[in-house]
Amino acid sequence: MTDVLVIGIGMIKFGRFGERPIADIGAEAALLALDDCGLTIQDMQALYCGNVYEARSMVGQRIMRELGQTGIPVINTANACASGATAFREALLGIKAGAYDIALAVGVEKMGKGMLAGGTAGDGGLAPEGLLGSLTNPSIFAHMGMEHARKYGTTLEQFAKVSVKNHHHATLNPKAMYQMETPLEMVMNAEMISYPNTKLMCSVNVDGSAAAVLCSEKKARELGLIGRALRVRGSALSSDPWTPYNQAMTDFNAVTRIAAKSAYEQAGVGPEDISLIELHDCFATAELVHYENLGICGEGEAGQLIDDNETSLGGRIPVNVSGGLLSKGHPLGATGIANIFEVATHLRGEAGSRQVEGAKFGLTHVCGRGSACAVHILEKA
Amino acid sequence: MTDVLVIGIGMIKFGRFGERPIADIGAEAALLALDDCGLTIQDMQALYCGNVYEARSMVGQRIMRELGQTGIPVINTANACASGATAFREALLGIKAGAYDIALAVGVEKMGKGMLAGGTAGDGGLAPEGLLGSLTNPSIFAHMGMEHARKYGTTLEQFAKVSVKNHHHATLNPKAMYQMETPLEMVMNAEMISYPNTKLMCSVNVDGSAAAVLCSEKKARELGLIGRALRVRGSALSSDPWTPYNQAMTDFNAVTRIAAKSAYEQAGVGPEDISLIELHDCFATAELVHYENLGICGEGEAGQLIDDNETSLGGRIPVNVSGGLLSKGHPLGATGIANIFEVATHLRGEAGSRQVEGAKFGLTHVCGRGSACAVHILEKA
Repeated sequence: MTDVLVIGIGMIKFGRFGERPIADIGAEAALLALDDCGLTIQDMQALYCGNVYEARSMVGQRIMRELGQTGIPVINTANACASGATAFREALLGIKAGAYDIALAVGVEKMGKGMLAGGTAGDGGLAPEGLLGSLTNPSIFAHMGMEHARKYGTTLEQFAKVSVKNHHHATLNPKAMYQMETPLEMVMNAEMISYPNTKLMCSVNVDGSAAAVLCSEKKARELGLIGRALRVRGSALSSDPWTPYNQAMTDFNAVTRIAAKSAYEQAGVGPEDISLIELHDCFATAELVHYENLGICGEGEAGQLIDDNETSLGGRIPVNVSGGLLSKGHPLGATGIANIFEVATHLRGEAGSRQVEGAKFGLTHVCGRGSACAVHILEKA
Repeated sequence: MTDVLVIGIGMIKFGRFGERPIADIGAEAALLALDDCGLTIQDMQALYCGNVYEARSMVGQRIMRELGQTGIPVINTANACASGATAFREALLGIKAGAYDIALAVGVEKMGKGMLAGGTAGDGGLAPEGLLGSLTNPSIFAHMGMEHARKYGTTLEQFAKVSVKNHHHATLNPKAMYQMETPLEMVMNAEMISYPNTKLMCSVNVDGSAAAVLCSEKKARELGLIGRALRVRGSALSSDPWTPYNQAMTDFNAVTRIAAKSAYEQAGVGPEDISLIELHDCFATAELVHYENLGICGEGEAGQLIDDNETSLGGRIPVNVSGGLLSKGHPLGATGIANIFEVATHLRGEAGSRQVEGAKFGLTHVCGRGSACAVHILEKA
């Protein structure tokens, strides 16, 4: 079975694009990824496209119309916030299966305006049959945080520091939606959305796209593209192992633990080997909880980790150096591949002023309500 | 690389299910497929779900809530009429890639009422950026037929005979929506929808679901399930090789020819080896055109083929013995796997009064506007 390498990456600056067609937004990231490795759409043997809101309407094929149609297989994947990561993983499996030597994965989303709340994709899935339909995303992740606070004494200040950190990181990332420092008082005094998350502790609702060119190792060598390539060491996807209706909200995290365990096992590394992490900080509370789910600290220690700046740029294990969903922004279908763009950029040593020095292994994590969690571990090839 | 076998199949009787939740409809086919091979959801290592209209809302995960949640990867695929076939193919590639030994593929759709026309998934995809947005599905496939008629002299009667044949076949299929003979005069005198297709020459808008359990050959042997298993000999997916905006409508067929060529090459067989075909008769005109696209007759000979009853049950190469989309019905996301259910049933020799005797190779074809075409070739394992 061949190893799969990422030989090209692309991402647009996240923003709000009004009436600009989704295919145009997706195609721009695709072209950036193709340019990044000096290839064209004619070199691609398949296109995988992750998107949520327009999933039923052939977004991948519409992107092909912008890039140039060649007759290749086009596969659209929809898995809530894990849609882009699912597209990436399916492209990887297609190459491992020998169906293609090289494939393009694109994640794209037009979010429209407003906060992440009811009326999102998750609700479309949950409302018809589940009690969770009555809980919006802000309230779910608020519960998650309060459960952590109840068990471990985590403070509002600790949750707020996540947002301070990620906003600071974003000032170093020209592709982030916002480049704006948000001091602790500013975060804590912002409009309360769902306790303990204030408005500045909720992910930013933006449009965006990201793309990656995946390739078999043999083909990458033939193309002479090993130099800047990344090796995918682990690729895992999971769903909820039980129905969440009557569970404490922290049980929601089981889905992350399943995927993380699988990805670490595939990669043959542990949390202690990871140089940087891009994880699903859809709300500030989620980031702290995921520290524990991903094993970078023990149970109940996440608050201490943020107090000690261990997950800041320059710390032991920087998390969301891109600015994360809290400041870079969260275009649902794009996020999974945007995370891969970020860790790949660091592993290549091309992250400029936000570079994590000596980065060897990067981990990405997305966790979509509904439920789908994807974890990938990449290494310099 | 392992061969992949289909060890379990399931399909519900297509119909209109009103307020019944989509997850419930999908889960029923899944349980039928699991029962068919004596396994349970606990034995499955992944679930792939094909659906169009609710693609953004985690249909696969909602089905897992009905079946029992186990934490396995769940992947939702959306590819218009090829959504179910795409789910099947991605499950197959995941097994070939070694990510799973065994996986469940489900296709499901709730169509609501009305004819296939504007406002369908295809339009959602095409309207924003393409001129085709102004053409509804009935008019596109009418154009297709008229182009064939112009070039080859195909008659309204010949197109109508497709519908007579498929309705007759459906009288032998208890899972078809309609069991009703439709004599030639009845078909030709029905309300004209888009010349030359009358109302009885348009696919039936119904809800439905179908499922398949896919398995590596090694695992199937371990489970002792080789006896009734089918081997997937070819699996191909394609998209339009050029933009259809300014092409004659028959060029739309290029997408089928690409997928068919690939599937035949993978299988190492030709059209002459195929015992039965389930193809995408979304309109009667489409079936005739696809005879030529799939190579079971020469260019312009499709009309003669139907006149000679060669594609009827008992003929040289029976097509749409299930009743096809014209009478069995066409729940978009379910159709690709329902086609596989039908050919698998014949290859097993379990098709009762509609059995194609001595069936050795079965071919399935779906072609979604937008564009995605899938062709699979199965053989008794």
